[in-house]
Amino acid sequence: MPWNRKDLISIEQLSAEEINTIFETADAFKKVLGRKTAKTPALRGKNVVNLFFENSTRTRVAFEMAAKRLSADVTSLDMKTSSTAKGETLRDTVENIRALQADIIIIRHSAPGSAGYIAKILDIPVLNAGDGAHEHPTQALLDCFTLREKWGSLKGRKVAILGDILYSRVARSNIWAMQKLGAEVTLVGPSTLVPKQFEKLGVKVSHELKPALADKDAVMLLRIQHERQNASAFPSLNEYKSMFGLNADRFSWLKKDAIIMHPGPINRGVEIDSDLADCSQSVILEQVTNGLAVRMAALYLCNGGSAEAAIA
Amino acid sequence: MPWNRKDLISIEQLSAEEINTIFETADAFKKVLGRKTAKTPALRGKNVVNLFFENSTRTRVAFEMAAKRLSADVTSLDMKTSSTAKGETLRDTVENIRALQADIIIIRHSAPGSAGYIAKILDIPVLNAGDGAHEHPTQALLDCFTLREKWGSLKGRKVAILGDILYSRVARSNIWAMQKLGAEVTLVGPSTLVPKQFEKLGVKVSHELKPALADKDAVMLLRIQHERQNASAFPSLNEYKSMFGLNADRFSWLKKDAIIMHPGPINRGVEIDSDLADCSQSVILEQVTNGLAVRMAALYLCNGGSAEAAIA
Amino acid sequence: MPWNRKDLISIEQLSAEEINTIFETADAFKKVLGRKTAKTPALRGKNVVNLFFENSTRTRVAFEMAAKRLSADVTSLDMKTSSTAKGETLRDTVENIRALQADIIIIRHSAPGSAGYIAKILDIPVLNAGDGAHEHPTQALLDCFTLREKWGSLKGRKVAILGDILYSRVARSNIWAMQKLGAEVTLVGPSTLVPKQFEKLGVKVSHELKPALADKDAVMLLRIQHERQNASAFPSLNEYKSMFGLNADRFSWLKKDAIIMHPGPINRGVEIDSDLADCSQSVILEQVTNGLAVRMAALYLCNGGSAEAAIA
Repeated sequence: MPWNRKDLISIEQLSAEEINTIFETADAFKKVLGRKTAKTPALRGKNVVNLFFENSTRTRVAFEMAAKRLSADVTSLDMKTSSTAKGETLRDTVENIRALQADIIIIRHSAPGSAGYIAKILDIPVLNAGDGAHEHPTQALLDCFTLREKWGSLKGRKVAILGDILYSRVARSNIWAMQKLGAEVTLVGPSTLVPKQFEKLGVKVSHELKPALADKDAVMLLRIQHERQNASAFPSLNEYKSMFGLNADRFSWLKKDAIIMHPGPINRGVEIDSDLADCSQSVILEQVTNGLAVRMAALYLCNGGSAEAAIA
Repeated sequence: MPWNRKDLISIEQLSAEEINTIFETADAFKKVLGRKTAKTPALRGKNVVNLFFENSTRTRVAFEMAAKRLSADVTSLDMKTSSTAKGETLRDTVENIRALQADIIIIRHSAPGSAGYIAKILDIPVLNAGDGAHEHPTQALLDCFTLREKWGSLKGRKVAILGDILYSRVARSNIWAMQKLGAEVTLVGPSTLVPKQFEKLGVKVSHELKPALADKDAVMLLRIQHERQNASAFPSLNEYKSMFGLNADRFSWLKKDAIIMHPGPINRGVEIDSDLADCSQSVILEQVTNGLAVRMAALYLCNGGSAEAAIA
Repeated sequence: MPWNRKDLISIEQLSAEEINTIFETADAFKKVLGRKTAKTPALRGKNVVNLFFENSTRTRVAFEMAAKRLSADVTSLDMKTSSTAKGETLRDTVENIRALQADIIIIRHSAPGSAGYIAKILDIPVLNAGDGAHEHPTQALLDCFTLREKWGSLKGRKVAILGDILYSRVARSNIWAMQKLGAEVTLVGPSTLVPKQFEKLGVKVSHELKPALADKDAVMLLRIQHERQNASAFPSLNEYKSMFGLNADRFSWLKKDAIIMHPGPINRGVEIDSDLADCSQSVILEQVTNGLAVRMAALYLCNGGSAEAAIA
């Protein structure tokens, strides 16, 4: 199916067919990554600008490396130290960058909806690298791409997402993606982090670890945000670990060949025991590599490339 | 006319002919920017170093993108966090960078004269990206290039520069450039920001907005520096807005087809009403794009390129 | 002699033959630097990641420029502001970067042994850009390469290393390198900075400047760390200068054609009088340029290149 979008803003707005178009293109680019000289000229001469209003070395570098593999020129701007501090509006900032002849903008911003807002203003592709608690579409795409590699398809599979879900854009994007691809999603964690309201999105919500993991094909762990923890937070890191931290005993509750996922950075000994993070059923590092292929695909398609040409 | 300078340090030292050589070269590069793959190999294999001792994402990125469009390799150094903090002299810093085989250095520094100082020390091109309250030559070149695009020539035109002029290197460079190109310049603003002494530079000085704007072909607004404002500053932001902020009423005092300019970042609702910033007579974003072409031209000419070859 | 190492972690583990293989390769690359378009395609399509857990604009840029001269793509990460702050282990950090398909990692870290630790974990080349007080191998290589350029060989030469040696990785790497190449090394400075224990490494230790410099062919000055100075430190900067700072009088104690070296950044008027730093026997800036050639050689060899091919 052809890709007709200028931007990648949210998974909510994508069809299953569009997601699969990204996956097929990512398949092709993953083969490129395996070559000795792992570059393709697909975006040669194009100017990709990484516009990060929140710190995220990890995501910024992943996009930077994806763009470089496509032979693009990349400029990464740490906007926490720039003119926005001088009171410039977001709109003026991005219009200035467009006026500098940027060809593609990747944006991370704390305001939900910010990526969609600038996509409407600008005539060039905009990719959302995380907009507040709204969405983080490339993360969900790389997660589901990884499951698809393992299973062939997500159809009929059962996935538990475990942890600090309340403000998680990773969870939100995955809820949309997994359901569109035919998986059943259960959110698990203490009620303070996983409120019942999420059921409106079509998923199950559970505050009991054992029944929630019982029949699952995969468990995705989310990071407990040390940063958000304060003295009165419930649960504390220790409480979380004792009630919901994944250990060998609890892992045995899942299906025998269940997959362990984590978007990183992992807190070894908090969300997950160190041995489990490194076990053969953990795909944590494969997720990272797949993130490169998926982001190459997203950049390429939004720039007007076709899946057929990438595959050929 | 051939370009015989190794460096671009100030507009004061340039002849009108030299300014026009830059403009003709920028004309050629602006056409490159319009192409699908907007790069030229003019500086392939060259190492351009951006040496910024003051924060300026905007100017740094503009130079970075200009250099990349010429196929140069670019290294940007934020010198506020580097060895100069360890007491190294400016001379030692730039000689070290030269010893690393830099081919061109772009410098921003708070000390007036610093760019000219290192240009004398080094045998490679040095471009001034702002040296204290002295000059910001590429800003004036892009401003005048933009006016030339609109008018064909600046000869006989009348331009008002309005705002915080006292320590403005942008104003200073434009005063030189516009007068050399045959325009008449009037500086406008409260006497605390626009002292009479500027008349020694050949310009008019006015503290009355209405008569100053009456017959002008263009008004260039300068940023009011929030950062410099303190409790006792006169005028305060609100006072400035009420007395000198450009609004629809005041804009009608200018000539009918007058042009609005601003070097950015703009304070909407302070120097200028938001609607005016976006109106068809505002060239604020064109200035940004022209900045790319003008900086490509400056890098190219200082590196020994000829205007004729760029145009051909 | 062929190069059979994946990594460059320490001088201690290299043989004199291996050091010479690097030098012969650096000879070839130094010729490349002299060309008009000073790039070679040796690492085209390779992704070099600069992973700096300590600030060092100087060393980071030197590696960045070396990698770019080899046509590699370079990504520099300032790890002081990244996820490690979020509690990620060093191992997880580097495995993530490897999963992003980095081809070569250059690491600076405050922990002695950290570079060797990650070299064992990863299947890609790791270059040590300074690991705590342990080693800084490329600095010693560029220092000895510079002496070899002047002398043909270090065999039988006598070198004094003067200054803050106690925690100096530069001194440590040079002690190994110079001795392996046949030079005699004397460490000089106050006993608080140059303890007698260093004699275990095969070098001489002296706290008296005059006899220590008497018959030396070269003196390498080390930076006095302002940062480490506190009120009770002995010697203070002034005391150090008066007792050990190199001035014209003291310089005359060395052999007539003795060489002055300094890894930079220099404190003019502290370790060395300003005139001496710029005199014809000072090779301080040549060291910087040679650092480029030596780092190109190290990147090239660790990536599987052969000295013969570079020379051809």
